Amino acid sequence: MRVDLNADMGEGFGDWSMGDDEALLDIVTSANVACGAHAGDWDVMARTMTRARDRGVGIGAHPGFPDLQGFGRRRMAMPSASVANLVIWQFGAARGMAASLGTKVRHFKLHGALANMASEDVALAAAAYKAALRVDPEVILLVLAGTAQEAAATELGARWAGEIFADRGYNDDATLVARGQPGAMVHDPQEAAARMVEFVKGGAIVANSGRAIPAACDSICLHGDGPEAVGIARAVRTALEAANVTLTPMVGRGR
Amino acid sequence: MRVDLNADMGEGFGDWSMGDDEALLDIVTSANVACGAHAGDWDVMARTMTRARDRGVGIGAHPGFPDLQGFGRRRMAMPSASVANLVIWQFGAARGMAASLGTKVRHFKLHGALANMASEDVALAAAAYKAALRVDPEVILLVLAGTAQEAAATELGARWAGEIFADRGYNDDATLVARGQPGAMVHDPQEAAARMVEFVKGGAIVANSGRAIPAACDSICLHGDGPEAVGIARAVRTALEAANVTLTPMVGRGR
Amino acid sequence: MRVDLNADMGEGFGDWSMGDDEALLDIVTSANVACGAHAGDWDVMARTMTRARDRGVGIGAHPGFPDLQGFGRRRMAMPSASVANLVIWQFGAARGMAASLGTKVRHFKLHGALANMASEDVALAAAAYKAALRVDPEVILLVLAGTAQEAAATELGARWAGEIFADRGYNDDATLVARGQPGAMVHDPQEAAARMVEFVKGGAIVANSGRAIPAACDSICLHGDGPEAVGIARAVRTALEAANVTLTPMVGRGR
Amino acid sequence: MRVDLNADMGEGFGDWSMGDDEALLDIVTSANVACGAHAGDWDVMARTMTRARDRGVGIGAHPGFPDLQGFGRRRMAMPSASVANLVIWQFGAARGMAASLGTKVRHFKLHGALANMASEDVALAAAAYKAALRVDPEVILLVLAGTAQEAAATELGARWAGEIFADRGYNDDATLVARGQPGAMVHDPQEAAARMVEFVKGGAIVANSGRAIPAACDSICLHGDGPEAVGIARAVRTALEAANVTLTPMVGRGR
Repeated sequence: MRVDLNADMGEGFGDWSMGDDEALLDIVTSANVACGAHAGDWDVMARTMTRARDRGVGIGAHPGFPDLQGFGRRRMAMPSASVANLVIWQFGAARGMAASLGTKVRHFKLHGALANMASEDVALAAAAYKAALRVDPEVILLVLAGTAQEAAATELGARWAGEIFADRGYNDDATLVARGQPGAMVHDPQEAAARMVEFVKGGAIVANSGRAIPAACDSICLHGDGPEAVGIARAVRTALEAANVTLTPMVGRGR
Repeated sequence: MRVDLNADMGEGFGDWSMGDDEALLDIVTSANVACGAHAGDWDVMARTMTRARDRGVGIGAHPGFPDLQGFGRRRMAMPSASVANLVIWQFGAARGMAASLGTKVRHFKLHGALANMASEDVALAAAAYKAALRVDPEVILLVLAGTAQEAAATELGARWAGEIFADRGYNDDATLVARGQPGAMVHDPQEAAARMVEFVKGGAIVANSGRAIPAACDSICLHGDGPEAVGIARAVRTALEAANVTLTPMVGRGR
Repeated sequence: MRVDLNADMGEGFGDWSMGDDEALLDIVTSANVACGAHAGDWDVMARTMTRARDRGVGIGAHPGFPDLQGFGRRRMAMPSASVANLVIWQFGAARGMAASLGTKVRHFKLHGALANMASEDVALAAAAYKAALRVDPEVILLVLAGTAQEAAATELGARWAGEIFADRGYNDDATLVARGQPGAMVHDPQEAAARMVEFVKGGAIVANSGRAIPAACDSICLHGDGPEAVGIARAVRTALEAANVTLTPMVGRGR
Repeated sequence: MRVDLNADMGEGFGDWSMGDDEALLDIVTSANVACGAHAGDWDVMARTMTRARDRGVGIGAHPGFPDLQGFGRRRMAMPSASVANLVIWQFGAARGMAASLGTKVRHFKLHGALANMASEDVALAAAAYKAALRVDPEVILLVLAGTAQEAAATELGARWAGEIFADRGYNDDATLVARGQPGAMVHDPQEAAARMVEFVKGGAIVANSGRAIPAACDSICLHGDGPEAVGIARAVRTALEAANVTLTPMVGRGR
């Protein structure tokens, strides 16, 4: 029994920093590295990938909308052909940087509003994933388990891994409880940790109602903004190790 | 006897276009494609590389300073470690796009102020070229013949090709006559064409004084802004063909 | 009987140009000047406002989404409080530039996707217009006649002027026939010119069905991209002059 | 006897923050607000100016080079006519925002590399200041005391105030000891505070050699990045109050 722990990283820009990459790099097994469109620049990317490489953390490209001021969190009406070019450009930049550091980009995860849109719209997800696969047919697509992202990845016959959240509550259809609703967030590190052990061991997301929904619990998304987030991340790692779950960079399904 | 004809391309951005890429693509054998920092975006890059691929024109990455408003023509005091990361990021993006289109990036040419600075500063040139070679040790560095760019490329033991200009006059030390000085520009297509045949056949730049300076006349830089430029480009191609010079994408020296 | 002729201008960026501002400046009576977010930069803005000032053309601020690559034509999910700040920032920049040139910004017109969204969403239009009025309560809001933009402007008790299009067909509810639909575009300069005389003299938009819809036909939007557009612009001006309609920078209603 | 305490503020961008504006706003009497080119955006600017207004802190525009990734700290070879347009555009944006908040921009201070260049090059400083004065002839130019900035401001007959640094050592010619040299930085809050009382009371900068150089000690620059900086800021304020120096937003000389 194994699982991957992933986190978004390299989301500074120039002199601005974001999150606690240093702390997270000692916890996670995969890093989703921003590619310069919503965050991250050439220097931040080089620094982040170097650190990830040196600790054996798997490196992923994390492309988003070209919207620095909005951190890629605002939906934009971008035609899917342009989204395809956009993710190729970002994935390529990440691959170039990784190659220059003697390492490689193992996985690909959409960011922010682009990820949200792709989790609802299988055609958009497929456009982005097809584009990524044209650059590297072996890349592992890290998809939100149970969403249109997963549907697109499986239809394309790609390698993929399913992602679940340590700090979010789930509805009965495996969607996230909307922020602001009761049960949306899990704040307690021990609770989050126990849930993750349960999800991974059971191969299922357990909704807030108690209902178990079989799901590809391959990679757990952790966060690094604020001490609570890092506390949850540490607790999740500790609990999984205690439960004899192997922590290792994601391995793709689907082949 | 052979030579390459190169031109900068894909220098539009969003709805803005620049130069006459369509006309030039029927003339040149290599295209230097902007990578999104000084010009070019994911859509422009995809369109430009597709056209180049379809016509058998060799594709190069053409990275510049991150300065859209100044088109990469303003010198910036950027540390060489950051320049290295910057060109890796752009080269990677270009390589990703080319891979997605089933083709590849054959060469690498610095743009604008970054190119000017690298033609004077061998350490800066070496930093940029070393970075590119860490991404792809086989890439051909297209250098301004006889400058610090050439010195850096040869010191690194890289594959490289020397570039000369169809529309510019030369000083006795093989530097370009500064714009605004008498003899800086060659306006007449027939004169430009005759010069290029002479340079290529003689393996030497002929300065305005008449002095011949042995030089690596591997690739002729053409321009696409304005009818005069395209006229010169056509005349150069026609004259070289008439002189039985083979026109072919650049082949690297240095190995 | 009078009318204003307006056109978007100053939509270049750095070395990139857009449209034929020179030709249009001899035709129009008001210029909507881009403010640097979707197009236009400090140099382009200075040049454009100088030319407009020298020809007695009224100057307007033309703010859009912060999306250079999409030319402000992609819808973005930006909270209205942020839209308010965004238009203040752009309007302020335009006012500063005009003041430095000894002239002033007389009107305010939203651009692209922001304009489209504001023509459908009275709350968004009101947020943007309230913001502009906090900077200058006397500015004339140039609104799409008959849309939520007009409703917002009138509710706010602002000075405003209604805008109609020379080259577009109208539905029976005064909305534009969607691009791609039959009757969406008017291509013939004489037809466009005759329609504008009819609209202005009648104080009504005449839909493609023939139905006349009373409307504030205060300002006619002209375009400068392509010879057809400039041809229509010239024909409209000539026909209005021949019909004894006075051409003059817009005068606000609503006070 | 009075002095102004100023600090750079509003230097976040989108989701990224910079410095401890909250802490500084309780200490300073003037805030230099970034205008969106090197840092700061419409939302950050609105928030920062609102806070400054509410505490009676004087508001200044703080324009820099258009270089987000380099935070405006890299020298750029920008023609002075373009620098003039650039600062007008930023100053205008700041004035528009202040007007929308019912307050005003009292002063103008150049940022980063642009400030450094203007402190050495009186023609560049004059170009930037003339541009600002064309927007508002009454604005107070906050200049580095004893540099080409001061020379330009006095030659233009502008209102100006001289700026000194709480945490930096001075050479005998009133220039700053270069970073990295011994005596470049003052780390001890009490030492910094005592120096500022001495400078302000004596109307002179005291060089590290002990030499007193008469200077316009009108405004003390404080910083907000790191606890040491805020500690110095607090100590300076406390010491000045104890010495019966009135702390008040800057008042211009020169008229």
